[in-house]
Amino acid sequence: MKKAKHTTARTLSAVGEDAAIAALVKVLGDDGAPALGPGDDCAVVEMGDGKEWQLTSDPIVEGIHFLSEAEPRLIGRKAVGRALSDIAAMGGQPKWVLVNITAPGELALDQLKSIYRGARQLTRKYGATIVGGDLGKGPELALHVFAIGQSPAGSSIRRDGAHPGDILYVTGQLGGSALGRHFAFEPRIREGLWLRKQGGVTAMMDISDGLATDLPRLLKRSGASALLQERAIPIAPAARRLEDGKSPLLHALTDGEDFELVFTVSPERATALEDAWRKAFRLRLTRIGEILAGPGQLLLEDKSGQRQQWTAAGFEHFRS
Amino acid sequence: MKKAKHTTARTLSAVGEDAAIAALVKVLGDDGAPALGPGDDCAVVEMGDGKEWQLTSDPIVEGIHFLSEAEPRLIGRKAVGRALSDIAAMGGQPKWVLVNITAPGELALDQLKSIYRGARQLTRKYGATIVGGDLGKGPELALHVFAIGQSPAGSSIRRDGAHPGDILYVTGQLGGSALGRHFAFEPRIREGLWLRKQGGVTAMMDISDGLATDLPRLLKRSGASALLQERAIPIAPAARRLEDGKSPLLHALTDGEDFELVFTVSPERATALEDAWRKAFRLRLTRIGEILAGPGQLLLEDKSGQRQQWTAAGFEHFRS
Repeated sequence: MKKAKHTTARTLSAVGEDAAIAALVKVLGDDGAPALGPGDDCAVVEMGDGKEWQLTSDPIVEGIHFLSEAEPRLIGRKAVGRALSDIAAMGGQPKWVLVNITAPGELALDQLKSIYRGARQLTRKYGATIVGGDLGKGPELALHVFAIGQSPAGSSIRRDGAHPGDILYVTGQLGGSALGRHFAFEPRIREGLWLRKQGGVTAMMDISDGLATDLPRLLKRSGASALLQERAIPIAPAARRLEDGKSPLLHALTDGEDFELVFTVSPERATALEDAWRKAFRLRLTRIGEILAGPGQLLLEDKSGQRQQWTAAGFEHFRS
Repeated sequence: MKKAKHTTARTLSAVGEDAAIAALVKVLGDDGAPALGPGDDCAVVEMGDGKEWQLTSDPIVEGIHFLSEAEPRLIGRKAVGRALSDIAAMGGQPKWVLVNITAPGELALDQLKSIYRGARQLTRKYGATIVGGDLGKGPELALHVFAIGQSPAGSSIRRDGAHPGDILYVTGQLGGSALGRHFAFEPRIREGLWLRKQGGVTAMMDISDGLATDLPRLLKRSGASALLQERAIPIAPAARRLEDGKSPLLHALTDGEDFELVFTVSPERATALEDAWRKAFRLRLTRIGEILAGPGQLLLEDKSGQRQQWTAAGFEHFRS
C-alpha cells in the first residue's frame, strides 16, 4: 500500500475503528439482502429452511493479540474462542469453523499442530467442527477464524433491540484479563443459547473491547442510553491486582478481552430470568443498570447518586 | 510464538505447504460430519434444505501477494477474486462474503475505502454480498476473505472424481500472471456454474499455484495419474514476455495465480461439452491431456512422443 501522501490524510489511527467501519459500511451500500448486515456481532443470513446462520470472522496477530512467547495451544484456543464468543452473543449454536493461518517459514510444524490442537479442543467443547482454512506465508504469525452459527429463523439476539426501562446485565466479572484470562476465557455459548431460549432478552453483545467501549455500540444501534450503577459493576480479582495507577473500576470498564455477555431484559421478565439463571448456572450474573431514553449516552451513577457521562476521554471523575 | 529451539525442528518452510496441511488435517481428526472436509477448494456442508454450501477462506498479505505500491482497489479485488475462484472451482454460486482487514494505524481511511470498493465491485459482478468482516491492527496490510457459495445438495464438483480415460481441460491461458493478470483475473464463476449444470465433469479445481503444482493435488485426491501434451498447453502471451531464462512453457506450468479452471470430463461427454462451450463462451477451452491409471503422477509428452515425469525439481528436461 502506498503511504498516504499528505500528512493531513485521515488515517486509521486518527479516525478510530468505529468510524472506519462506518465508512466501510457506506462503501458496501445495500447489496443483496442479508437478514442483518455489518454492525452487529455477526452478520445473519437466512437459508430458507426455517433456520438462520450467523457469520463472523475475527483476526488475531502476533505482537498485538498475543506475545511471541505465547504457548501455541493457547493461541489457537484464543483465536477460535473470540469467534465463538461472537456467536454466543447472538444466542447461536456454533457449527462450522475455518481457520486461516499465515506464518513465517521458520515456524515449526509442531507449533502449528499445537495451535490447531488448541483450536480444535475448543470447537469440540461447543459442538462445532473445523472444516477447513488456509495456510500461507506472512511476516509474523496471524490467525483469522471464520465461524458459522445457527439459530431458528428470526431468533438471533441483536444489538438493536434495547428499550428504555430494560434491565442491563453482565455475565462473569470484568477487567484485568491481561493477567491471563485473555487466553483462558470461555466463550459464553451455553449461556447465550439459554438466554435466547429463555425469551425476554431484548439485546445482547459480547464484551471484547471493554464494557465502556462496547456498550455504547449496543446503545447506538438501539437508539437508547444506559445508566450504570458504579457499585454493581462486577470487578474481577485480576483487575485489583494490576497496580498501574488505574482504579480497579476503570480496569473493569475499559480493559479489553473479557468476552463476557452484556444484555438487556424487559423489566417484567427480569426477576424470573435471574431466578432461572441461578438454577441453571454457577456463573455470576449481575444487574448493572438500566436502559434510558436518550441519544446513546453511557452514564455512571456513583454511590452518592452523582451521574457522570462516559466520553472518549473517560468518565469525568476518572480524569483528575 | 517461540522460535523452534532446535535447528533440527521441522519448519513450515522445510516440510512445505501440502505436508503441513496434511499434518493439520490429522490433528483435526474426524469431528462432525461435513459433506466434505479439508483438502478440496472449499469445505462443503449440507444445510438440510436440498442445498449445500461451499465454505472457503483465503489470505493475502502485503509483501507476499502484492507489493506495497499496489493500487488499493486492485488489492481488494484480488483478495475477493481468490476466494470466489475457489467457489467457481466447485461450480458454486457465491452468496455471502466476509472481509477481514488488518493494517497499520497509518493506513489512510481513503485507501481502506478503495480496498472495499474494489472488493465490492467484484462481489456484485458475481451476485455475492459482503455482509461483514473485521478491522484490526497489524504490522502490515493483510486481507482474509471468507466466502460462502451455494449449490444443490450433492452437486459440488470435487477434486476426487477423475477416472482413467477422462479428458483433461483447462480454461484460458497460463503463465506470466505476475505481469498484471494476478490483479486483473476473472474468477471463473460463470464457467464453473455452467460446467456443473452441463454434467459429465468428474473433477475440477482452480489453478492458484501453477498447473504443475495444483494438478497433482487433484490427481492425489482422485487416485489417478495424468498425461499432459506439451504442445497443447495454452501459454499466455505474458509468459513469453518474461525474459528470465525460464521457457514460456515452464512459466505456464509453474507460475502461480492463473485462477483458471482445470477439470476432467468423461470421454463420452467430452466432444459435446466442447461444442456447447464454444457456443456459450468466448473464453478459450483447451484439451491438454488425459487421466491415466496410476499413483498420482504427472507426465508430460513432448512433440517427439517422449514422456517425462514431474517431480519437485521440475520436469527432467527443464533442469539442464
